[in-house]
This record gives sequence, structure tokens and C-alpha cells, in this order.
Amino acid sequence: MRGAVLYAPGDVRPETLDDPKIVEPTDAIISLSVTCICGSDLWPYRGANAIKQPVRMGHEYCGIVEEVGSAVKTVKKGQFVIGSFFASDNSCPHCHRGYQTSCQNKQAVNGAQAPLLRVPLADGTLVATHEVPSPDMIPHLLAVSDVLGTGWFAADAACVKPGATVVVVGDGAVGLLGVLSAKQMGAERIIAMSRHPTRQRLAREFGATDIVTERGDEGVARIKEMTNDVGADSVLECVGTQESMWQAIRATRPGGYVSYVGVPHGVELDGAQLFFTHVRLHGGPAPVRRYLPQLIDLVWTGQIEPGKVFDLTLPLEQVAEGYRAMDERRAIKTLLTT
Amino acid sequence: MRGAVLYAPGDVRPETLDDPKIVEPTDAIISLSVTCICGSDLWPYRGANAIKQPVRMGHEYCGIVEEVGSAVKTVKKGQFVIGSFFASDNSCPHCHRGYQTSCQNKQAVNGAQAPLLRVPLADGTLVATHEVPSPDMIPHLLAVSDVLGTGWFAADAACVKPGATVVVVGDGAVGLLGVLSAKQMGAERIIAMSRHPTRQRLAREFGATDIVTERGDEGVARIKEMTNDVGADSVLECVGTQESMWQAIRATRPGGYVSYVGVPHGVELDGAQLFFTHVRLHGGPAPVRRYLPQLIDLVWTGQIEPGKVFDLTLPLEQVAEGYRAMDERRAIKTLLTT
Repeated sequence: MRGAVLYAPGDVRPETLDDPKIVEPTDAIISLSVTCICGSDLWPYRGANAIKQPVRMGHEYCGIVEEVGSAVKTVKKGQFVIGSFFASDNSCPHCHRGYQTSCQNKQAVNGAQAPLLRVPLADGTLVATHEVPSPDMIPHLLAVSDVLGTGWFAADAACVKPGATVVVVGDGAVGLLGVLSAKQMGAERIIAMSRHPTRQRLAREFGATDIVTERGDEGVARIKEMTNDVGADSVLECVGTQESMWQAIRATRPGGYVSYVGVPHGVELDGAQLFFTHVRLHGGPAPVRRYLPQLIDLVWTGQIEPGKVFDLTLPLEQVAEGYRAMDERRAIKTLLTT
Repeated sequence: MRGAVLYAPGDVRPETLDDPKIVEPTDAIISLSVTCICGSDLWPYRGANAIKQPVRMGHEYCGIVEEVGSAVKTVKKGQFVIGSFFASDNSCPHCHRGYQTSCQNKQAVNGAQAPLLRVPLADGTLVATHEVPSPDMIPHLLAVSDVLGTGWFAADAACVKPGATVVVVGDGAVGLLGVLSAKQMGAERIIAMSRHPTRQRLAREFGATDIVTERGDEGVARIKEMTNDVGADSVLECVGTQESMWQAIRATRPGGYVSYVGVPHGVELDGAQLFFTHVRLHGGPAPVRRYLPQLIDLVWTGQIEPGKVFDLTLPLEQVAEGYRAMDERRAIKTLLTT
């Protein structure tokens, strides 16, 4: 099969690879008709992490089960399933409490930018739909796998409540779906921080009531001004830099909630400074598995259309252009057909 | 009158000072029969902050109202009142949400290690008891003013719930009263981290079910071992150093709560490291005002005796020895008679 491999910063290519095989009896092999590029793929693509050897890319996936290992009990060949970027047993104490991305037996899933994928811990990781979805629903279900699940966790970790004033820092696909999630959770006012017209439009379509184009100190001042000098109840930090993190913290009212869902890069929090803000902080790798049944249902019943974040579709052979378009912010999120 | 003044690290002395006077029409003057030394007083005493000019010390107080300003409406001469280290108007948006220590009009209260004290924003800050308490109840009510209020906030900010497993890092008076607070909130297991026999005894008396003497990596390993490799539901960080903060974070289960209530000194949180712990973090200057009515009631009805943290009583003239005894950990907390 063909699959995307990152060789060096800026150098991602389709390669001919061996088809994945069942390795552990708890594995499943699934076939993906479409796959996609994640905002977090841009960190290694931009050189934020050292690349010691070629890396198979992709960790967002949904598709048809082709084969299961001998120990797999609930997932069956022919089912349409959705999983997340960490495989989890869904039975350890952390999974029971809804933190499947801290599962005691978690395994990273990689190589989803390809037509076939091995998923470990299939019973714990994969959630099957009632039937095979129509092709036009698949991008929405693919979004559930990571980018919506992460935006949803951002809103949930920031305790968005009905009537709340919410700020979303970051207008990437996760931030935009954080807006959608906050809307679903009943937020009254949703302020999206964005200076990009295409993203502003999608933010409004997803439920943003206000757009703030200022950043840093000016952005914080604007939020304070819009909230009678109080600050927001919940702020979703969907970027992962020092500037965005402090922008989020300082835009929050004392006792309010800040969530952060992208791996922080170069973020240092001064304890004393944080102390006097009085905010509540919660984040980490989104436990998407917790939300899968609920989010699949919202898509299936047509209540949400998270796949709208895909504004560029390319064949897998053009994966390099898919990364470039996201890196240069010409595309919000790239869908790849396999 | 005589009052404690800090001149330089290690140099605190009783001085003859002018009696405080009403400055603003919202002020009250109260007389204190006893006062005390706070763990946080030890930071400047130990030289952690630069002392540019002599500083009047003390911010924990309860006593009889001697005089009120012309704008004071609810507080009356002759009442016994309790306040907290920040005066607050109790009417701004932050106060309404229970974050009085982030009050938009907050003012620090200083100079309480003296027989008379000026309290700004008296109506918002002071809570009166139904009647004047008996002398033996006064130390318990004095503890409510800060050290219990702070321990209570630590337990509340760490979302201690009935049945929870709670860890308290720090065996100072705040940590010990964090134990008492967690017990009141229904924690099933309360693990106090302490290697000091006197403090261990008081921790047990306040409700600790287990004592852990290990610190740092070993302390974390011990907590993991005691919780089937899961970690605690709620961890109260009551020290404020880098080591204690990370000890607290690493002892917490994913999705669990860490509170921190002492001003952090030299604490830096690496964003990526914090991210993967999946903990929830909340802290800041304890909004004691929020809890005053409830805590006064618990003392008044004899349900709690927080004044047991006072294990040394000295006249104000011996304030220097009071600081020394706490600095050298010979005393948990010093009560000063005026």
C-alpha cells in the first residue's frame, strides 16, 4: 500500500509500504476510504521535534474492519468503526474515569495516512456505528476521531455551562470545533479570537457570537472590555504556545476555567503569576474515546457537521501539498482520499 | 500601642506605634485580645522578599469593633467580628462568584500583630458572630480568619468529595487544617505527608488515616503504591515550592485535582510535562470571606477545633521568639496575647 512518511522537516512523501498485519491478538486492521492531516502533524513537519528516523504519519481514522485478532470480542469484520490517537483498553481505572488517553496500557496509533491501519486494543479503542454510513457522512465521522473530540474536550475541560461567556484562543480546526462544542453545551456568548476571514466565517457558522482580531495584551484588553472588566467564564486554549496560553489565562475571570488541548511547545507557567489569576486549569491529550458514542450520535442525527473543517481534499499521493497548504494556512484541514 | 515590625530578615520586633484611626468612611477599628503569626510571614522573615522599609506584620484577626467610619452600615461597635487578609467589598462580580481575594476593590490588611487594627471595607470584609464568644473559643475563631480558611479552600479547590482519597502535601498549620477540612467534606482516606511526630499526631487527630514520611520521588511512589498505582483523587499542596508542587501533581490521578494555596516561591510549571499528567489545577489566595459564615458556625457549634494548631502562646513583646520557634519548626503556629 501507499502511506505518508515524514523524512525531515518539510519533507513528507507517499511511500510504498507493507500492508499492516495483525501483530497482537487484540489488534484489528481497518480500511480507510479517507484520512486527514492533523494540526499536531505540523509540529514535526515544522521541525519542532527531532526526526531521528522516517516516521509514518496520521492518527485520525474511521473505516471498515477488515480483520480482527483472535482475542477481539466485540469488534467484527465489516463494521464501520471510529477510534482515537491513543489505543486504550477502556477497562483500567483511568479509562473508567474517562481518561482513556492516560490508559495504563495505552499505545499510540500511527500510520493512518494510508488506506489500511492496524489498531491495537481494538475492543477498548474502537466504537462501531449501527450501520455503514453514507459516503457524505464519513468526513464528519472522521472529524469525530480527533479534531472534534479534542475541541469537545477543550469545552468540557473548561466546564462550559449553559449561559456562559466562552473565549476560544486559536482558529485552527480544533479551535473552530471548540466553538461548535461550546455552542452544543449551551454557551450564550462565544468569542472566537481570529484574524483570518475564512476561519472567522466558519467560527460564526459553528456558533461564535463575536470575533476578536487582537492578540496578546490587546486581545486580553478587548476580552476584558467585552465582559465589563470581568473576564470570560471559560477559555479554550487551542494553540499551545506561551503567548496563547497566557492570553487564555489572562482572559479568564478569577475562578473561571482554562483548558488546553494542544501539546504545549515552549510553555512555562510561573507559579506565582498563575496563583494570583485564580483560574482553574485543565488539559492534556483529549480522551476522545470518552466522547465517541455521544459525538457519533450527534453526527448521525445531523445535529452537527464537524467535517466542514475540511476545506481541501487531495488524493494521498499529493500529501505533501496537503501539509504545505495547512502550514501556510491556505487550508484549515486537509482531507486525503486513499 | 505596641505592634510587630519586621526590619530585616530575622529581625522582627515589637515597636511603639500610633493607634490606628479611621481613614476612609468604610473603615472599622477593631481590638484584638489575641493575634498570631502566619506561615506566610516566614517568607519575608527568611528573606524571600526584599524588605525596602520596616513592615508592620500580621493579617489574621478577630475581635471587638471599637469604632466604625461614617459609611459603615452593617458592622456595629461592640460586635465580635472576623475578617481575612484581603479586605473586599463583597459586592463586585468576583466577590459575587466567591473570589473575594480577587475583589476589584481589594485592599491588603496588615498590622494585625498588635492590639488594634484598622480594617478597610468593613461591611464587605467583616462577619459578626451572634454574640461575643467566650475566651476559650477565640483561638478557634482566630484560626478561621486565615489558616483554616486557607486549608478549607485547599480542600474545596481540590474538589474533595465524600469517599475520596486525599493527599495533603505540607504539615504546616494550613496543611493540618487541610486535613481537617477534607475530613469535614467526607474524604474516606486522608494521607498526610509529614515526617514530624507532633504534626503527625495532630494530623491524625484532625482526621488523617495514613501518614507518609517519604518525599519527592519516593513520596510519589509511596502514594502510587497505596492507591493501586492510580494516584489520589485530590491533592492539597500546602507548601509552595517547586518540589512540593510537583510532588502534589505527580501524586494525583489523571483527571484528579491539585490545589495550591501558598504563594508559590520559585515554582515553574513546564507546560508539556503538566499536559501529560492530565491533572486539574486550581489555587490562589484563599477567598476566606466566602467560607466565614460556614466556618464560624462549625466552630461555634463545637464541630471543629482548628485552634489546636496553636501550640505556643507568647505575649506580643516576645514576638521575635514566636517567629523563631516557627522558623525552626519548634512550634506549628504561635498565638500572641496583646
